[in-house]
Amino acid sequence: MSTFTTEALMAFNAHYARIIDDDQVEQWPDCFTDDCLYLVTTDENHRQGMQAGMIYADSRGMLQDRISALREANVYEHHRYRHLVGLPFVVKQEAGLAEVETPFMVARINRNGTTELFATGRYLDEMVRSAAGELRLKQRIVVCDSQSMDTLLAIPL
Amino acid sequence: MSTFTTEALMAFNAHYARIIDDDQVEQWPDCFTDDCLYLVTTDENHRQGMQAGMIYADSRGMLQDRISALREANVYEHHRYRHLVGLPFVVKQEAGLAEVETPFMVARINRNGTTELFATGRYLDEMVRSAAGELRLKQRIVVCDSQSMDTLLAIPL
Amino acid sequence: MSTFTTEALMAFNAHYARIIDDDQVEQWPDCFTDDCLYLVTTDENHRQGMQAGMIYADSRGMLQDRISALREANVYEHHRYRHLVGLPFVVKQEAGLAEVETPFMVARINRNGTTELFATGRYLDEMVRSAAGELRLKQRIVVCDSQSMDTLLAIPL
Repeated sequence: MSTFTTEALMAFNAHYARIIDDDQVEQWPDCFTDDCLYLVTTDENHRQGMQAGMIYADSRGMLQDRISALREANVYEHHRYRHLVGLPFVVKQEAGLAEVETPFMVARINRNGTTELFATGRYLDEMVRSAAGELRLKQRIVVCDSQSMDTLLAIPL
Repeated sequence: MSTFTTEALMAFNAHYARIIDDDQVEQWPDCFTDDCLYLVTTDENHRQGMQAGMIYADSRGMLQDRISALREANVYEHHRYRHLVGLPFVVKQEAGLAEVETPFMVARINRNGTTELFATGRYLDEMVRSAAGELRLKQRIVVCDSQSMDTLLAIPL
Repeated sequence: MSTFTTEALMAFNAHYARIIDDDQVEQWPDCFTDDCLYLVTTDENHRQGMQAGMIYADSRGMLQDRISALREANVYEHHRYRHLVGLPFVVKQEAGLAEVETPFMVARINRNGTTELFATGRYLDEMVRSAAGELRLKQRIVVCDSQSMDTLLAIPL
């Protein structure tokens, strides 16, 4: 019996996308383990092995700080976003740990009503289970396909 | 054992999108129960608790009338659409009823060959089973992310 | 027990999209049986029953030749692509063979960083199992929604 079924991975990503897009982003850090790596980077940087990225956080506390800052800046007033998370590909799984790659597209809906394809890329995940048995991200490296994502800094991907 | 598995919900949405996009839209009302709610609205309206929307129907008969009108008007000649329905998130399930939220993106392909992101949003569903055991929508509220969707009235979302 | 579960079909498509988008395209022909049909066409051609298309191959060898030619021409330097493959709809399944329809969207990420919706459509598949039990495409007809896809010839869809 596989510990990380496709069904469980998809349910996790459905939850992940929903809390970001539907304005419950305070729950977002709870998708991660205490000790974690969340990195948003480009494909070019990633190929060169650079750990630097547009966003870097290595603990859940840093993710919480980030959300607080975004709330204070009223970032969420400006646009809406919609994630569509694709089919997960399990690269490897061992006792208690799964490496998973999952593609995504994110649309941005501007205040004037126009919609555009904002970002595409893939998640490089390491997933574990919490004591309560729930899936958690020990690592999510968000590798964006585009090189130029200056406005990306606003929301979690 | 869960009555509404992710697999069953995805199979339902695969069917739902296919009949709309592949010109079998006469089957679309059969996705709903006799007594149903189908509402297309914006996120802003939905937050304010308004039941009004760009499309409102509270019976399968109204949905059938709508499709007949669209056929007569040859609406389907003008564009093609392509739905990509995301991963379902089960909010709650009780005996025989599931509340599910599912994101979607819809592309519009114009006659001149250009393709654009036409609509994004989420389905707020109440799903039941028919006497024959098939999934049916007792409610599908289509909450569009964009505020301005005047041309939306044409096709089912 | 069903031979071609939704889970198995989704895992196959996750693999298929990943090798194309993440530059492992040499593995792409291995998704097909030796004797196969891979056709990229438009909805209009497909409705008229035309077997002609923008790309036509009827063996795995032809697919391999195609990839070699693309590599030599450095086609992959120019753009990146991102496939999002939707939910599979099983039209029919018999002993050892499944007919499946699956929608897709493909984004193109240009060198200057802009991202656009490049293609949408559906896969019309016939799936079998290899001797080792792995899913293989005996047929994948890629029916594009748009009529005008001249630049499509570059990458596999």
